[in-house]
Amino acid sequence: MLPQWIIEKKRDGLELDSSEITYFIEGYTKCDLPDYQMSALAMAIYFKGMTARETADLTRAMIESGKRLDPATLPGIKVDKHSTGGIGDKTSIPLAPLAAACGATVPMISGRGLGITGGTLDKLESIPGYRTGLAENEFIRTLHTCGCSIIGQTDEIAPADKKLYALRDVTATVPSIPLIVSSIMSKKLAEGIDSLVLDVKCGSGAFMKTIDDARQLAQALVDTGSAMGKKVMALITDMNQPLGRTVGNALEIQESLDILSGKGPIDVKTLTIELAKQMLCVAEVLDLGGGVSDPALHLTDGSALKKFREMVACHGGDLDVGLPGAEKQIPLPAPHSGYISKCDAEAIGRATLLLGAGRIKITDTIDPAVGLSDLKKIGEYVDTGEPLCVIHSNAHENKAELMQRLETAFEITDNPVTPKELIHEIITH
Amino acid sequence: MLPQWIIEKKRDGLELDSSEITYFIEGYTKCDLPDYQMSALAMAIYFKGMTARETADLTRAMIESGKRLDPATLPGIKVDKHSTGGIGDKTSIPLAPLAAACGATVPMISGRGLGITGGTLDKLESIPGYRTGLAENEFIRTLHTCGCSIIGQTDEIAPADKKLYALRDVTATVPSIPLIVSSIMSKKLAEGIDSLVLDVKCGSGAFMKTIDDARQLAQALVDTGSAMGKKVMALITDMNQPLGRTVGNALEIQESLDILSGKGPIDVKTLTIELAKQMLCVAEVLDLGGGVSDPALHLTDGSALKKFREMVACHGGDLDVGLPGAEKQIPLPAPHSGYISKCDAEAIGRATLLLGAGRIKITDTIDPAVGLSDLKKIGEYVDTGEPLCVIHSNAHENKAELMQRLETAFEITDNPVTPKELIHEIITH
Repeated sequence: MLPQWIIEKKRDGLELDSSEITYFIEGYTKCDLPDYQMSALAMAIYFKGMTARETADLTRAMIESGKRLDPATLPGIKVDKHSTGGIGDKTSIPLAPLAAACGATVPMISGRGLGITGGTLDKLESIPGYRTGLAENEFIRTLHTCGCSIIGQTDEIAPADKKLYALRDVTATVPSIPLIVSSIMSKKLAEGIDSLVLDVKCGSGAFMKTIDDARQLAQALVDTGSAMGKKVMALITDMNQPLGRTVGNALEIQESLDILSGKGPIDVKTLTIELAKQMLCVAEVLDLGGGVSDPALHLTDGSALKKFREMVACHGGDLDVGLPGAEKQIPLPAPHSGYISKCDAEAIGRATLLLGAGRIKITDTIDPAVGLSDLKKIGEYVDTGEPLCVIHSNAHENKAELMQRLETAFEITDNPVTPKELIHEIITH
Repeated sequence: MLPQWIIEKKRDGLELDSSEITYFIEGYTKCDLPDYQMSALAMAIYFKGMTARETADLTRAMIESGKRLDPATLPGIKVDKHSTGGIGDKTSIPLAPLAAACGATVPMISGRGLGITGGTLDKLESIPGYRTGLAENEFIRTLHTCGCSIIGQTDEIAPADKKLYALRDVTATVPSIPLIVSSIMSKKLAEGIDSLVLDVKCGSGAFMKTIDDARQLAQALVDTGSAMGKKVMALITDMNQPLGRTVGNALEIQESLDILSGKGPIDVKTLTIELAKQMLCVAEVLDLGGGVSDPALHLTDGSALKKFREMVACHGGDLDVGLPGAEKQIPLPAPHSGYISKCDAEAIGRATLLLGAGRIKITDTIDPAVGLSDLKKIGEYVDTGEPLCVIHSNAHENKAELMQRLETAFEITDNPVTPKELIHEIITH
């Protein structure tokens, strides 16, 4: 078996055998196969796709390239959520402690932001002292103590994915469904979870711009999870406007604290509660009375907030010293009155990137304090001069470019506007 | 400009700018761009193709990656021929001295055999002492002395092609028309020639199996040459059966000597004369009387053979010590009488490879003495037991596999068979 024969087979649109996929991924992980053969195969996969069986085999090979958390070391019923990423999507932060407060165990391995998409790890690191790089025994101890823990990917978990992800980024082979699915699922299933809820974002601020594309990705994720013997379901949710009223690291932590206190924007609250419900249902986490808890109650009774404070403490973080704030807070006035008809997630993401809240390259450093708050949502009415948002700046940005981005982000019309549904579809196997 | 943006642009089927192509090839030659980005781009080109303009730019960038022979250092009107490669195709060997005898200058940079396709350099090296690796000044001197010289690709000529060719071989990106065209044309146009005749092989023993594919490749070659300001034309010729009656290195040199002596098989003679005519016409090489020489006359009057002997001597070769011969010569008897209806070039090529006349990998060594001779041609009549060919063996081969290959190569029928036309089409700009 020569690697070029495997590349050729995929190039010609044929289905690869399990042994061919395993040979390629094992060889690549051990550096027996060079990057240039992996990138040629990735491009062939980009063009020719993979069957459900091949995608499951690829996922399995990536999991087996590294270490897998032993479910026996973790308490309770293990369930997680993964979002494909969006603007202002801080849901993981209130959700993990909320699901834990409802009785689930949430061993969440999360990622950093890249491009316009924010990252849960970056947001958590805006909490003074919070360490995302826990050792495995610390991670397990945290899960025993408070039922949830959010850490970064370690070198031991799915090293093939780590290597392949970096390669795809520089070879224009990122937007391929089987490659996306195996990357997401290999990391998630190496966590030792029983069940998984996926939040596939769809719209201008998401990777998947159309409902068809989002549906295809969601189905592939669910099918791959099922093929691996896990209970998996997916929501397709709107990402044409940012989620919530804040975009930026510390600002999104503040909004998450609001949600955990029973307050905060309705969209974030709705999505957090819905995702928690789905996690409990799919994992069959029952409360003492034998039913499924109502997550909404745990937001108002303070139990989810308590879990979050416990988790932050286990990670070395200190919420009491306060979150970093930016030097300047500048309202962006509405040029005229009317109804907000557009608050473009992609443009808002690019504006936030300009402020310094995100990275262009993975090695860039970010400013935790900057971003946007008080974002007006589609359908809301504004008077002339009323703020469309508040800019939190440390004055690093190109101001002209920032203003141009923000001005194109918003549109205001005379007639009332109905926003899109937040939750488009539910996808099961 | 990031390399991944260029890969993405081609992946999405867009036309690359000249500057993008130059940036990529320059960077790749200097090792600023890694193999894994080049292989991803090559695979994207495989799927999305290139326009005539892009192919010309790619060719130009590959030429400019290295040194180009200065036409001013070479005498006369420089014209060359390139064949896309086939089984038993020894035409370059009699053709170069024949065209030189007719007044042209033929600075031919040729290749080695790989897989079932033989290589002119390997054939020439079966002449004791013949050096294919002349230095540039020796090459120029040889051209001044005898009007033709056949050497191998140097490190200075189109180094980008040398690197890319090796990469394509291990990343399943060989069969792509723009990549084939730029590889061939960059090497050929770096020779400092004015005109070029291409022999695009078509059939079971050729890279291009169908006339449509061959036509597409021929047109792309001709168009790219024209875009570079050269006079280029192509013949599409048959490669369903081997050319001539010999396949193997020394055996093909002997057949070439026969042709140069006005003898030899009619197909090799016809093609050699036709290619010579086309070279003289396209390059407008005129004889002393102001007309185009008749190449056939130079085969019978001994002038082409004299040129060949001069060239061999300039290369350090000695024809008088004789060519290497194999230990055993075994006739392959016809199982029954009838007309040859198939003498499959691919199967003959594979049989010759088994005998040791070719290479699987570029680093394999070859046996110059082995091969097949006295090949019966399609349409010829054989009696039962009459040899279909003679096997020249040094007993290295797997005999059972060899016999099986040879038996499937030939088919004999009761009814007379008309072979396909040797020259299918002529393609000009």
